Amino acid sequence: MATAPVKSFQYALHVPYAHTDQMRVVYYANYLVYFEMARAAMLREVGLPYAELEQKGLSLPVIEAHCVYKAPGRYDDELKVVSRCSIEGPRLRVTYEVSRGATVIVRGYTVHVGLSADGKIRRALPELRRLVE
Amino acid sequence: MATAPVKSFQYALHVPYAHTDQMRVVYYANYLVYFEMARAAMLREVGLPYAELEQKGLSLPVIEAHCVYKAPGRYDDELKVVSRCSIEGPRLRVTYEVSRGATVIVRGYTVHVGLSADGKIRRALPELRRLVE
Amino acid sequence: MATAPVKSFQYALHVPYAHTDQMRVVYYANYLVYFEMARAAMLREVGLPYAELEQKGLSLPVIEAHCVYKAPGRYDDELKVVSRCSIEGPRLRVTYEVSRGATVIVRGYTVHVGLSADGKIRRALPELRRLVE
Amino acid sequence: MATAPVKSFQYALHVPYAHTDQMRVVYYANYLVYFEMARAAMLREVGLPYAELEQKGLSLPVIEAHCVYKAPGRYDDELKVVSRCSIEGPRLRVTYEVSRGATVIVRGYTVHVGLSADGKIRRALPELRRLVE
Repeated sequence: MATAPVKSFQYALHVPYAHTDQMRVVYYANYLVYFEMARAAMLREVGLPYAELEQKGLSLPVIEAHCVYKAPGRYDDELKVVSRCSIEGPRLRVTYEVSRGATVIVRGYTVHVGLSADGKIRRALPELRRLVE
Repeated sequence: MATAPVKSFQYALHVPYAHTDQMRVVYYANYLVYFEMARAAMLREVGLPYAELEQKGLSLPVIEAHCVYKAPGRYDDELKVVSRCSIEGPRLRVTYEVSRGATVIVRGYTVHVGLSADGKIRRALPELRRLVE
Repeated sequence: MATAPVKSFQYALHVPYAHTDQMRVVYYANYLVYFEMARAAMLREVGLPYAELEQKGLSLPVIEAHCVYKAPGRYDDELKVVSRCSIEGPRLRVTYEVSRGATVIVRGYTVHVGLSADGKIRRALPELRRLVE
Repeated sequence: MATAPVKSFQYALHVPYAHTDQMRVVYYANYLVYFEMARAAMLREVGLPYAELEQKGLSLPVIEAHCVYKAPGRYDDELKVVSRCSIEGPRLRVTYEVSRGATVIVRGYTVHVGLSADGKIRRALPELRRLVE
């Protein structure tokens, strides 16, 4: 996407039994939960826990989500989620790669729009610059 | 519990794939969701949708939950939940029986306490009498 | 997409408390569960319950999912999901529109690939023709 | 329960947004998921990952679950789950205390029965002794 390296973040999790289905794989909707957990960890890592952003009046509701399922995740797998961000105007876009060892499980992205406390769309998201710089 | 017949309510649902686990049965936590769906339907049936109760300042947070798992629920099962209530002071107790045909799947109960909008425990729950009379 | 009318299917559901989040809206991953419930109802409607398809050796794992969030879904909303299918070779594509009354809440799609019991990708999905004809 | 100290295990987790509801607290069913995550970590810690137990033909389906909700869990809370086991014949009983700092959030237990690969109830669970000794 760019010639400069894009900042990346890592998050690890164990798949709980709760997230498997009778095909013995992770049920497809749960990857969106893993995306959210990775996002939360990423924001915490740059000193901007989402709970604090909300208290300061910035929320980031999702307006789009996409997943491509490449290989099944399994019970008790230790999955790694690598996240990368880009910001344009009021929009935050995060891409995710979920993998187990060298095997890519899921690739996806979410798009979020910054809202102020009164529910208005923000013009820009300067406080999130740490995610990309 | 009493010599008078206790009012009962019925709710039916299809088990989604999302709720199965790799043992090919309904994951145990999901029965608490079925209890909630049955409770919501019961309140709607007596003209007291929970969303309206909340708007009028009555919330009913759960303070206790119990499940006994008698037989496995399966994908696409049509499950029936029969609910019965009792009220004592600020407490609502709901018992549930989840079954598939003649087979009892889960028995359980939840206990709720009535809170007013300011978070104080209510003395009584007269507006819920329709659940028991 | 085509000049011929595309067959459509409807499914209705009430949003449980379980599916809301602290923004007071339906948590974004749950729409993928609603998509699945709508798919299951659609297959049941044409006489091909997914449980039976699996028993006959056809599974339809998802290989891609997409959601665009247009407006928030709320607790106890009665949501309607309209589904439409297209089939090409071993792939089933289902588009979904989730709405509350006249308000579109979410638009999305899922792509599935037909696998036989031995895990091989099928060449075609003739038994699913009823979904489109 | 006994004069000898009972072995205890600790597990920590961050509450995801997915697990909150519109009351701004952790939805009640999710504590059963936290119990499961704590159980899995406990088994891993004593060298008996549940995935391996299943492969060796021992499954531990839950036959009873109980939760007492003492205080609300919140988004992004770091919750600690302390687990303790007792074993009697084919039954494993695990008690859990979920807390945030010094505040107890939930107390509960689950009861499991040991099944062999053919679905028969086991007489005893000697391989699980490490959980209690």
